[in-house]
Amino acid sequence: MSLTKIEQTGHVLTITLTNQERRNVLSEAMIEEILSGLEEARTAKARAVILRAEPGVRVWSAGHDISELPHSHRDPLGWSDPLRVVIRALEEFPAPIIALIEGGVWGGAFEMVLACDILVATPESSFAITPAKLGIPYNIVGLLTFINATNLHAVKEMAFCAQPVNADRALTLGIVNHLQPADKITEFCAEMARGIAKLAPLSIAVMKEELRVLASAHAITPRMFERVQGLRRKVYDGHDYVEGVRAFREKRAPVFTGE
Amino acid sequence: MSLTKIEQTGHVLTITLTNQERRNVLSEAMIEEILSGLEEARTAKARAVILRAEPGVRVWSAGHDISELPHSHRDPLGWSDPLRVVIRALEEFPAPIIALIEGGVWGGAFEMVLACDILVATPESSFAITPAKLGIPYNIVGLLTFINATNLHAVKEMAFCAQPVNADRALTLGIVNHLQPADKITEFCAEMARGIAKLAPLSIAVMKEELRVLASAHAITPRMFERVQGLRRKVYDGHDYVEGVRAFREKRAPVFTGE
Amino acid sequence: MSLTKIEQTGHVLTITLTNQERRNVLSEAMIEEILSGLEEARTAKARAVILRAEPGVRVWSAGHDISELPHSHRDPLGWSDPLRVVIRALEEFPAPIIALIEGGVWGGAFEMVLACDILVATPESSFAITPAKLGIPYNIVGLLTFINATNLHAVKEMAFCAQPVNADRALTLGIVNHLQPADKITEFCAEMARGIAKLAPLSIAVMKEELRVLASAHAITPRMFERVQGLRRKVYDGHDYVEGVRAFREKRAPVFTGE
Amino acid sequence: MSLTKIEQTGHVLTITLTNQERRNVLSEAMIEEILSGLEEARTAKARAVILRAEPGVRVWSAGHDISELPHSHRDPLGWSDPLRVVIRALEEFPAPIIALIEGGVWGGAFEMVLACDILVATPESSFAITPAKLGIPYNIVGLLTFINATNLHAVKEMAFCAQPVNADRALTLGIVNHLQPADKITEFCAEMARGIAKLAPLSIAVMKEELRVLASAHAITPRMFERVQGLRRKVYDGHDYVEGVRAFREKRAPVFTGE
Amino acid sequence: MSLTKIEQTGHVLTITLTNQERRNVLSEAMIEEILSGLEEARTAKARAVILRAEPGVRVWSAGHDISELPHSHRDPLGWSDPLRVVIRALEEFPAPIIALIEGGVWGGAFEMVLACDILVATPESSFAITPAKLGIPYNIVGLLTFINATNLHAVKEMAFCAQPVNADRALTLGIVNHLQPADKITEFCAEMARGIAKLAPLSIAVMKEELRVLASAHAITPRMFERVQGLRRKVYDGHDYVEGVRAFREKRAPVFTGE
Amino acid sequence: MSLTKIEQTGHVLTITLTNQERRNVLSEAMIEEILSGLEEARTAKARAVILRAEPGVRVWSAGHDISELPHSHRDPLGWSDPLRVVIRALEEFPAPIIALIEGGVWGGAFEMVLACDILVATPESSFAITPAKLGIPYNIVGLLTFINATNLHAVKEMAFCAQPVNADRALTLGIVNHLQPADKITEFCAEMARGIAKLAPLSIAVMKEELRVLASAHAITPRMFERVQGLRRKVYDGHDYVEGVRAFREKRAPVFTGE
Ligand code: NI
Ligand code: NI
Ligand code: NI
Repeated sequence: MSLTKIEQTGHVLTITLTNQERRNVLSEAMIEEILSGLEEARTAKARAVILRAEPGVRVWSAGHDISELPHSHRDPLGWSDPLRVVIRALEEFPAPIIALIEGGVWGGAFEMVLACDILVATPESSFAITPAKLGIPYNIVGLLTFINATNLHAVKEMAFCAQPVNADRALTLGIVNHLQPADKITEFCAEMARGIAKLAPLSIAVMKEELRVLASAHAITPRMFERVQGLRRKVYDGHDYVEGVRAFREKRAPVFTGE
Repeated sequence: MSLTKIEQTGHVLTITLTNQERRNVLSEAMIEEILSGLEEARTAKARAVILRAEPGVRVWSAGHDISELPHSHRDPLGWSDPLRVVIRALEEFPAPIIALIEGGVWGGAFEMVLACDILVATPESSFAITPAKLGIPYNIVGLLTFINATNLHAVKEMAFCAQPVNADRALTLGIVNHLQPADKITEFCAEMARGIAKLAPLSIAVMKEELRVLASAHAITPRMFERVQGLRRKVYDGHDYVEGVRAFREKRAPVFTGE
Repeated sequence: MSLTKIEQTGHVLTITLTNQERRNVLSEAMIEEILSGLEEARTAKARAVILRAEPGVRVWSAGHDISELPHSHRDPLGWSDPLRVVIRALEEFPAPIIALIEGGVWGGAFEMVLACDILVATPESSFAITPAKLGIPYNIVGLLTFINATNLHAVKEMAFCAQPVNADRALTLGIVNHLQPADKITEFCAEMARGIAKLAPLSIAVMKEELRVLASAHAITPRMFERVQGLRRKVYDGHDYVEGVRAFREKRAPVFTGE
Repeated sequence: MSLTKIEQTGHVLTITLTNQERRNVLSEAMIEEILSGLEEARTAKARAVILRAEPGVRVWSAGHDISELPHSHRDPLGWSDPLRVVIRALEEFPAPIIALIEGGVWGGAFEMVLACDILVATPESSFAITPAKLGIPYNIVGLLTFINATNLHAVKEMAFCAQPVNADRALTLGIVNHLQPADKITEFCAEMARGIAKLAPLSIAVMKEELRVLASAHAITPRMFERVQGLRRKVYDGHDYVEGVRAFREKRAPVFTGE
Repeated sequence: MSLTKIEQTGHVLTITLTNQERRNVLSEAMIEEILSGLEEARTAKARAVILRAEPGVRVWSAGHDISELPHSHRDPLGWSDPLRVVIRALEEFPAPIIALIEGGVWGGAFEMVLACDILVATPESSFAITPAKLGIPYNIVGLLTFINATNLHAVKEMAFCAQPVNADRALTLGIVNHLQPADKITEFCAEMARGIAKLAPLSIAVMKEELRVLASAHAITPRMFERVQGLRRKVYDGHDYVEGVRAFREKRAPVFTGE
Repeated sequence: MSLTKIEQTGHVLTITLTNQERRNVLSEAMIEEILSGLEEARTAKARAVILRAEPGVRVWSAGHDISELPHSHRDPLGWSDPLRVVIRALEEFPAPIIALIEGGVWGGAFEMVLACDILVATPESSFAITPAKLGIPYNIVGLLTFINATNLHAVKEMAFCAQPVNADRALTLGIVNHLQPADKITEFCAEMARGIAKLAPLSIAVMKEELRVLASAHAITPRMFERVQGLRRKVYDGHDYVEGVRAFREKRAPVFTGE
């Protein structure tokens, strides 16, 4: 465990991302540690989990580890790819997960916090949907996470403009449940977690699962899905996907041609 | 009619819950009277209905009548159980129903007001989702009512923390349409109802029905449903359900074991 | 092109409705010009489109051209009718469309701006759902546009009361993304459009399409649909539909009987 | 009751179509009598119903009463139109309905017998799907009845060729359950009905309802439905619909232009 | 292992039901042994499984162990009840399962063989759907298994008449893939299994899973499901369920009242 | 046009596959010619199309052109790949397509004939589903074509055993509509096509489209689809896919390891 820290107090387990140096990027290694933390929480029958970065960070998590993105001609958001795995693990965990957020939350990390159950953030936090900066075709389950979290026009603006949304607007949009100042947020979340831990765990677990099922109940025909998958393939087969990733690595602005 | 009062003025019918003594608990008897009121409104071709408690109450309705909950090993939220029946009656009533809310709205009563079409509340009102306090597995249609009324993370917080949400936050979350002070709310709702009564009733009825159909259009496979039903059965077969109900009756804090 | 004006700057194309005299009513002719504008944008590979009225208008668009509504016994919102065609064209356009809104947006025009991707409005704007004033049975796809744009109880209030919602409330409800004063809104939207134009067009196009698919994924059985269609037919076969349209033309209040 | 005859023996009720003169055409009057028969069976708590024509008929039923078809510009298969009403009544009847078939079963009558639960036919029976002869756009629920009854390519052949299928092929295709010679079929069906009447009625009723729900569970999006409805409207607005009905009345071959 | 026998030859594993004395009734103990057999097959990476009774039996399996059915007021076909568990295990097993059938297959055993992938039977076999004999409300997933296996009217006849269907008709109905005489059936199935074992196991596994997903893709709304569940509860709460089970135990004909 | 021959007689257009040398393999070139033929038929407003091979062929079509399959790590059945394109073109063609079949129909060609509307075959024809021979993960839309054409257990047997089904069994299974001897089949299909051409083309077109919509209405959640896509990716990333294709080219039996 070199990228996270796991602590338990009573029925509450806290997973802290500790890789400030690389801005808590969601590398395969980082995600494996988060999964380990969840596994530990499951074994300990934790009744609430807090997922957080270290106090005082400027970036909560920078999202996808771009250096791990597959080359062209390969879906970067497949079922077994790390981001998708951790999101399902959070959704399927049988107790509530509180995301304690301080600092910037970008790209895949944004979806990851939305896959938590309750979001509490400091007033300085911000949130951005970034695939349009890189030329990545986000996957349909991923976009559903966003649609379920806030209203459609807000998702579209965030996805199409790729600009960060600040904490106040995130509160209005229902993206976060509460804002708390940095020096109070830890205790606020701990108090909330202790409250949850006194309630009936099975009742909560079944309601969490029912809500998960309802939230994913936007069924489409196989034909429509394969069509979308075909559109997505054109994108990750294309010039702009290569250019986006390369420009990011070279720390320059990309030049997109729409091809 | 000993638990409600029915009055009609022009095209508008008002149903007032009058069982303050028992905090307008949703007993079978109370629900039967609400259903009668709706039946009367249907016969009278009312073009709008107002559902309210008496002015000045501290609790609008305390929700489920715990003393009527079935013993263990029995789904407490079956299709023919009173709460489910009244919710469908409100949804299927062919004219708009305005919930005029003053005071606390708890448990099943919260879902009942959400099944109304327009919610107007005083600034002192509050709302709580309480099954986690009792160890009850809420049903999937019931949770869908909440999901359709506000955003997913707010529903999760309310369901998993079981804490009341105050009127201001309810307004921000879109749970209520308007806040009005206690001395103005009656006239505000009457004015709104009169306005509705001047419009085309069939056009409104068909739009209400279309919205009902759309809101319930989150289809899942029979397999997924039976799985959820199996999870719910484990809960109402379990120790915590018995403990939750008993502790409530004995007016003490429950001790949940998660079994 | 006598009802609109088309301008292009860089990758951004602007369509301006210019028929102030008839309050930019959505006549067949007006809709054909909007469609032409979108076609031109497609040919030019525009990366963002702005849809707006002329600066200073009091009514952005008055919605349906009532004089073009079919007589009784005919669905006024069929698949090939102009409003439905333009809404699909906006949804299927492969780049983001920004609705720049100043003034009143009524009836079908309200749905049309919601079919755009991002809505920016002046503080004096207002929005109304008006079929209940005319006795029209809105169609189910149309109501889905509203449900996807804001929460259910707000849609119900707007549909059943037919009263305008002002810009502030529209912002809270998530109906508009941003409010901007009249003298800044043009530059605000232009800036937003230029920002979009620098991002990866294919990534944006596929996300727009995925969101469209997800937003329409509220499937219902053919039986339920034909039932709704049957209810709607009763309305447009009925007395009130005739009365509503006639009263509008005669500029008097309609008298609805519910038949 | 001039078009049907109702008889009851024990728990079994028999409805006999007796309008041989007009080949048991499904006029509004005929359908009302069938509905009355079902109502009577419901009151009598019949455990099985037999629907039949009189012994020895050459045509079991000729289907739609063409003289009652609406003029152009009107959906001939709306929710409240007689054929659709009787089909739902058969599907929703709480006990099994046995169609005893002798002779030709054409058009809407074919769908009507498929809406029964068990089909027994004489070897001389035949079955035809005929809207393509008249230029009628069959409705989607109606086609679902056919798809649920046999395989897709057989439905297509019958619908696109409009040729009768004989009893042997109907048996192979699973359209009928059993063939029985004309002099044995009455007793065969009576025996089957008596067998059903000895079994548990509620168990049967709930399985019938579950199968009805499953068979109709081919959900589509509102958008797809309105598109199909739009295609159908083009057909009943068109020249060929007028020509088809006229030619039928004038007893000549129609000349279709595809417009 | 006292109720089954497990044998492996090459890539093929055979599970034989050996409890002839009790007609291979699907008791909890029997189902646990079948599950063990499947587990063993999974560990051994078997590429095909044969599920059979001993040669020469008159009853392949008598289905549900009636003595294990729950008392009244309890769903006898819950998610975790043995029959439902084994059916899912067969469907989810990653290699094809061949049901080798000789003799009568009744009630739950009929659904169990349909949950296998390929059915081969002797000409003396027969199949019956029996809940209507006992007053049991079959569950919706269970009925879906039947609908997916053959046509709707055949399922209705079998469910509503509770009479056995013989092997010839089962072949015509597509219920079984092949008939083979008793002295050839063992070698026929072994040959088929060896053929499968030579093909690409992952390609087969993924197609089996895709077909499972498609076959269960008959989604319904939560509301419809809870309604069906409510209807089913009335049945297992009722008089006839008690009477049906009691009469079976007392080996007499039940007297059903429909209550 | 070197691989097909197009002929028109009256309202009927015939497309004949003429690449006997390569057994009418569905290469990109072949599929482009079929698409051209359909385009020509559309322009000519053909009311029926016959798709056939030349008289006397032993192989109607050998299916996929294995030499064009993508290397490992690439979905061989993507939305824009030729087989998927031609299948949609056949389904969406507005008039009935009759597949006139003589000889073996293998792999993708089998799905292609099932995408036609009516199948007529000579008694010597045979049909095989072959991906398990090559290690290919068939796509979910493709398997839906098979499920819609015949019963589930037959599809499983064909997919898991990869053995040809002869014409007699194909008739019983509903895969083909009619068998006709080789010297009569041409006239039989021509007669059928002429019959169709006399009926109402728009009525037929709309029914074809409704049936297409219904047949594809097996909606699944995005999550379930992405899971299936993930399983399929494991297959085309795996050893067996490479081995299957290589063995086919080297004309030897493949050795599959299940990895
Ligand atoms: Ni939703
Ligand atoms: Ni929704
Ligand atoms: Ni189906």
